[in-house]
Amino acid sequence: MSRYRFTIEYDGAPYSGWQRQDDRRSVQGALEAALNRLGESAPTVYGAGRTDAGVHALAQVAHADLERPWAPFRVMEALNAHLRDAGEPIAILDCSEVDDSFHARFSATQRHYIYRIMARRAPLTVDAGRAWNVKQALNVDAMHEAAQLLVGEHDFTTFRSTECQAQSPVKTLDRIAVREKETQALPAVIEIDVAARSFLHNQVRSIAGALKEVGSGKWTASDLEASLQAKDRCACAPVAPPHGLYLVGVVY
Amino acid sequence: MSRYRFTIEYDGAPYSGWQRQDDRRSVQGALEAALNRLGESAPTVYGAGRTDAGVHALAQVAHADLERPWAPFRVMEALNAHLRDAGEPIAILDCSEVDDSFHARFSATQRHYIYRIMARRAPLTVDAGRAWNVKQALNVDAMHEAAQLLVGEHDFTTFRSTECQAQSPVKTLDRIAVREKETQALPAVIEIDVAARSFLHNQVRSIAGALKEVGSGKWTASDLEASLQAKDRCACAPVAPPHGLYLVGVVY
Repeated sequence: MSRYRFTIEYDGAPYSGWQRQDDRRSVQGALEAALNRLGESAPTVYGAGRTDAGVHALAQVAHADLERPWAPFRVMEALNAHLRDAGEPIAILDCSEVDDSFHARFSATQRHYIYRIMARRAPLTVDAGRAWNVKQALNVDAMHEAAQLLVGEHDFTTFRSTECQAQSPVKTLDRIAVREKETQALPAVIEIDVAARSFLHNQVRSIAGALKEVGSGKWTASDLEASLQAKDRCACAPVAPPHGLYLVGVVY
Repeated sequence: MSRYRFTIEYDGAPYSGWQRQDDRRSVQGALEAALNRLGESAPTVYGAGRTDAGVHALAQVAHADLERPWAPFRVMEALNAHLRDAGEPIAILDCSEVDDSFHARFSATQRHYIYRIMARRAPLTVDAGRAWNVKQALNVDAMHEAAQLLVGEHDFTTFRSTECQAQSPVKTLDRIAVREKETQALPAVIEIDVAARSFLHNQVRSIAGALKEVGSGKWTASDLEASLQAKDRCACAPVAPPHGLYLVGVVY
């Protein structure tokens, strides 16, 4: 057995999430099925981030132990061919052989997510399913400034799904930035860029939902702080939809 | 009758192109049908750029003369509602009342297109249908440098569809730039940015196809120049696919 590390991109739309589930389509399940078609008897693929239903990834990281001594380029090519033939919008961008001590989930020291918003009344066309269409203009500077309150170690109970299984609601947000991205899209795409060692279930989407309230002027920065301090899920704004969220990197 | 100017975004995938055709789905036809549902009896919508089948627009400009004295915001909202209900991936981003002397097509002094390439062996997922997936690495600097040969007034017969109906193959390219776009996508998206008063049929896609040959090392800059000088459609490289092309702006 040798351990392989994969960098993986996917369109989250058709999946119930990263995690394998008996009766539903998952990214992990699709990858394991593709490895199985390559002759690997019972492969398990471990991902760095267990993305939710509908959430995209541009650079998820995963590992698997394979029975055959694959050349990394060959296993990447074979997986991409099987995934394409199976109609799975999943692509392996990179593959390397790694030491057995590497674990995609437990060795990760930082996860990096981007949440994309297009603030305009007109429906999305080219970016449909690729960003959250907020129907009003947002004050990006106000969002960025208020967001800085969330940096550091906090009890994020307010920004955590009631179904979250993490033992503690205390997490450390390494950074958060809200900015307009220079693209040809009209108006500019707003990106919320967050990084932390790990996140609670729905944490990024809960933060995005709260920052939207700040951007629209419904909440002040003080309201955001009060919401954090409440440590009460009911103090959160509506959670932002999954199709605006991208796992864009994992640091080891 | 009053004249209205529209800024329009669309996903070109389901359309046979901008131009109305009796038995096929077109952007112009969808817009005219939506105006008809608003009670306008026989609206004609004139577009600045007659984009081809599958080509996208982020800021097409069009005008139409309407019978009723619409408030611009109202007609934009009503059109977007009708387009959404009809399942048309077309959005009106802006609308204003303009003088009768304004003509979306004939008053335009410059069209601006972007051609997007993702150069990697792995299939596209999130960007499927939104960029050309070239299966090898491309030398962006070589592409940019060679492309400068095309700036200025030239006989672009080589880079023109045999079905092109323009009277003259001579056009003036105002600028062309090839660059990597900083995004989270892996690898970086390559953008070919071109602007001219007007373009021949398939000109941008023909240029993109030729620059891909330069980027892959199959053609030198001299080969590109020889291809231009040949003034022969047969001297062109394979035309790049439509789904990488975006009309991103029109100058008046």
